[in-house]
Amino acid sequence: MEFSFLTMGTASALPTANRYPSAHILTVRERLFLIDCGEGAQMQMRKFGISFAKIDDIFISHLHGDHLFGLFGLLSTMAMSGRTGDLRIYAPGGFEKILSFFMEQFGEGIKYNIIFNPIKCKEPVQIYDSRQLEVFAFPLVHRGETYGFLFKEKAPQLNVHKHLIGPYKLSLYEIARLKEGSDVVRKATFKDDDGSEVEYEETLKNEEFTYLPYKPRSFAYCTDTLPFKRLAGWIKGADMVYHDSTYTKEYEELAKTTFHSTSSAAACCAKEAGARKLVLGHYSSRYKSLETMLEEAKEVFPATELAMEGMKFEIELDKYKE
Amino acid sequence: MEFSFLTMGTASALPTANRYPSAHILTVRERLFLIDCGEGAQMQMRKFGISFAKIDDIFISHLHGDHLFGLFGLLSTMAMSGRTGDLRIYAPGGFEKILSFFMEQFGEGIKYNIIFNPIKCKEPVQIYDSRQLEVFAFPLVHRGETYGFLFKEKAPQLNVHKHLIGPYKLSLYEIARLKEGSDVVRKATFKDDDGSEVEYEETLKNEEFTYLPYKPRSFAYCTDTLPFKRLAGWIKGADMVYHDSTYTKEYEELAKTTFHSTSSAAACCAKEAGARKLVLGHYSSRYKSLETMLEEAKEVFPATELAMEGMKFEIELDKYKE
Repeated sequence: MEFSFLTMGTASALPTANRYPSAHILTVRERLFLIDCGEGAQMQMRKFGISFAKIDDIFISHLHGDHLFGLFGLLSTMAMSGRTGDLRIYAPGGFEKILSFFMEQFGEGIKYNIIFNPIKCKEPVQIYDSRQLEVFAFPLVHRGETYGFLFKEKAPQLNVHKHLIGPYKLSLYEIARLKEGSDVVRKATFKDDDGSEVEYEETLKNEEFTYLPYKPRSFAYCTDTLPFKRLAGWIKGADMVYHDSTYTKEYEELAKTTFHSTSSAAACCAKEAGARKLVLGHYSSRYKSLETMLEEAKEVFPATELAMEGMKFEIELDKYKE
Repeated sequence: MEFSFLTMGTASALPTANRYPSAHILTVRERLFLIDCGEGAQMQMRKFGISFAKIDDIFISHLHGDHLFGLFGLLSTMAMSGRTGDLRIYAPGGFEKILSFFMEQFGEGIKYNIIFNPIKCKEPVQIYDSRQLEVFAFPLVHRGETYGFLFKEKAPQLNVHKHLIGPYKLSLYEIARLKEGSDVVRKATFKDDDGSEVEYEETLKNEEFTYLPYKPRSFAYCTDTLPFKRLAGWIKGADMVYHDSTYTKEYEELAKTTFHSTSSAAACCAKEAGARKLVLGHYSSRYKSLETMLEEAKEVFPATELAMEGMKFEIELDKYKE
């Protein structure tokens, strides 16, 4: 029941000896989702033991090289590794031209289908939906069309309180209805004072008989953006937020002109959204040490962590305790 | 007076956790030449302390992703690092379309000139010429147009044997002529038996008065090729040869169908060319250990070494000893 975020690249536009361009893996149970695919992503994936075969969906936030240039190598490698299953790519519309050119020039050996799903929205929209997960895209404020992503685990099936099954003589049919989320209305009887049986309708209220076995988890990916007020509302309640943290406060002006965030702006967003954890990344190459970056965020939002290449951030399952 | 070859990527088409796609730096004194530019080249360059600013010439052997996909990131990074000087790229003609598309989609911030020099030849042709170095391209036998490169240091200026300067009373003018490589013809006299001075023409033969202070060095880059007979002749006398070594003998048939070489075929080529050293690379991802690869080459050509990421192979200066 894993729900984790692996950072494989924490650099901003200029990679360094230790920091790779943006590329991340979100694991939701058995499925892996690649979020951005900067240069070297496939080598990092090998290094961190990520199976290419488990990736069917790639989310590209925007069409800047540091979020995209690893895709060509990865698509080629997937082909050479014998992939046959469809691959879906979610990206801004401009990606279509890039994909076409890539396929024309380098796509000869690619036998699997690449299905491009263009993203276009001004408010959050659902772009992915499966039995266990839905993904929403929402616009960010950056140079060129840029999107963030909210990954939301779907609520699991309700469980029925075991200690109520006996006393209420719940039938299998009634348990199934309760698990579906319905109230159960059933005929019941009681003996009147004169010994006669009185029939009445008994309603078993769903909320009194059931509980969610665990709280569905969610993760928001907010890279490359100027801070803006509506963002926190769009990712409200996300358990974990990854946020652009290109600069410290000292370079707040530069953050503005380059359409990026400081770590403290990232922290404000996480706080406002009511997140449980904030993960910082996309650091400017000017920082050798990230201590100040972290301190400035923690002043606002203590549950902040610095992403580093190969670090995995887990959202633990919050199980219902009877 | 460095002349060295740094291997930054030894993988073939499929990179592994430790092996990057092809990218190499040839250092000739103060100048750096990038040979092939597979994905991750810029990160490897940072890791191995290579200054991007010292690279004015990039040689691309062929247009397969594992030799090319690092170029987009590198060109972008050079721009963001404030490059203004011209950059020359030598590659097969098909690269023009790729470069145009890249510039159209991602070239907005690129303010320096990228000068594309298309390579087209069936025999070795000079593609680069400077005061100290010339580079020849020659065709290889691979899928799609592919070229190898021969880097030849130019002969240094001749020195005049010091022990002959006094006895022959060489003038500064005569020394300059000898250094240029000319014979010196001068008027001389001797006393005849009767005491009269006889004038005659004396010729100082250049080869008797001069020597090369060191032997000019050369390096041949032969990646991605089927073995073929003419190749050794084209790189005859190269001090160091880098050669495609995708497979061991066990996979000789696969080498043929994929247009690659075994390590022993690489060794035969180096031996036939009279090389002093052979460097193997471009290993298939199937090999965890390269022991057999090396052994099979050494049986044919003992002075063989395995390239690994970050290894630098030097060609020592062979100085004239009086």
